[in-house]
Amino acid sequence: MTKFDEATQAIRVDDTTYDVCLDDGYSIGGPLNGGYLLAAVLRAVVDESPHEHPVSTSAQFLRAASPGPATVKIERLKSGRTATMTRATLVQDGRPFIDTLVTTATLDPAAAPEWTGEPANPMPDLSECVQLPDPKPESNMNLNAQMELRFDPPTIGWLAGEPTGRPESRAYFRMAEAQDPDPFVLALAVDALPPVVFSAGARGWAPTVELTWHLRALPAPGWLTLLGSGRLISDGWFDEDVEVWDSAGRLVAQSRQLARVGRG
Amino acid sequence: MTKFDEATQAIRVDDTTYDVCLDDGYSIGGPLNGGYLLAAVLRAVVDESPHEHPVSTSAQFLRAASPGPATVKIERLKSGRTATMTRATLVQDGRPFIDTLVTTATLDPAAAPEWTGEPANPMPDLSECVQLPDPKPESNMNLNAQMELRFDPPTIGWLAGEPTGRPESRAYFRMAEAQDPDPFVLALAVDALPPVVFSAGARGWAPTVELTWHLRALPAPGWLTLLGSGRLISDGWFDEDVEVWDSAGRLVAQSRQLARVGRG
Repeated sequence: MTKFDEATQAIRVDDTTYDVCLDDGYSIGGPLNGGYLLAAVLRAVVDESPHEHPVSTSAQFLRAASPGPATVKIERLKSGRTATMTRATLVQDGRPFIDTLVTTATLDPAAAPEWTGEPANPMPDLSECVQLPDPKPESNMNLNAQMELRFDPPTIGWLAGEPTGRPESRAYFRMAEAQDPDPFVLALAVDALPPVVFSAGARGWAPTVELTWHLRALPAPGWLTLLGSGRLISDGWFDEDVEVWDSAGRLVAQSRQLARVGRG
Repeated sequence: MTKFDEATQAIRVDDTTYDVCLDDGYSIGGPLNGGYLLAAVLRAVVDESPHEHPVSTSAQFLRAASPGPATVKIERLKSGRTATMTRATLVQDGRPFIDTLVTTATLDPAAAPEWTGEPANPMPDLSECVQLPDPKPESNMNLNAQMELRFDPPTIGWLAGEPTGRPESRAYFRMAEAQDPDPFVLALAVDALPPVVFSAGARGWAPTVELTWHLRALPAPGWLTLLGSGRLISDGWFDEDVEVWDSAGRLVAQSRQLARVGRG
């Protein structure tokens, strides 16, 4: 069991209740990463479902959860031949922190696409991409130690005061420890990039309000490619779209989140 | 009050219950249109919320609802200064049909975008776009009479046996009766196009499993432009992305749905 598998473990208490222990190792500047929290919620949902894979997850982020014990409350809404639908709520100290609606189904690992688009932005070779400098210890960027990101250089230019002027963020991604990507790693991956608004000049914590992601195929081993972009920044709100492509060149996950622009 | 306003009216029974009467005029080949149902649910959510606009809605479609009386059950999850989060469920005959998570907030009608993308596909002039032929009465395409759609010609080629080979669907949209677009009309608009997979050669009813849409700005009066596209058709699943632009050239709504490919 990897560190990530352990940190997202959901232990069945009864049909509607799972215990999780939220790990400070996945915090970023204080709050726990949203994708990490979704991975823990999804372990409970998949365990309770007769189906194997979380094909669609939508989540509302009500409050910033803290490290420590928490509970996933499961409400099975419908189960059919093709899919099971579940509401799952992450609860801490008796209060809901994340509310989700999840569709589970069983994907065919051998399915070939009937039709597929291409990545909108081709990535440079891995060797031409750049790592973030190690964060200052006092900045609490614990999440950064759990994963490796290699950025398409222009999209990390904001760090040196040279934002591209467009909402975008692109990187190769893998877990820091040896771990093949699976649907739970994908839940982390869709929320792993720095907010796309940083490239448009914004700074500061950009809290996710809603995030929906779809699992489109089971990922091949190796690096993932994360392509993040946005369409509109207005009235304090922005959207962030992330496509995840696997090492076999397949689109494996799609996400969109609606978030608030931070006050940097 | 327009016909649409009346057909989506939600009458308050108490803090957590609203009555609606689902109108057969919004059915399409039998089932009621998903966007229409969301509009009715959102009227209840907005009425109950201290905020004015449904900025983010994610919905799981559990079953196909029927015309007639139904109830919207409201559960307020959190209310803050910026946003209120609500779970709302459409219930008929004691069973849930659609489950939703909704974030309401109050958008500034005068907000100018800080950054905006451009439509990915420029539309031809309205005069160069085409209408669907009137449906045969026995086909029950009642929804078609409620709205006017003018299609970008290649994206409706599938109707004459000439699909483009790509998942896409693009049209101008307005209500058939005189009605300026508002957030409830947008809920209908994001699910108003023929499924994008028809252009890729698929046929038959394509049931929506999950649909999330974000209201990004309050729409100007006049025609809306609906730009629909997809990224992957695989394993019986497809995604449909719809951007809605208003007559002032502003992105007013974004949606993505995950749906099943029909057996045509």
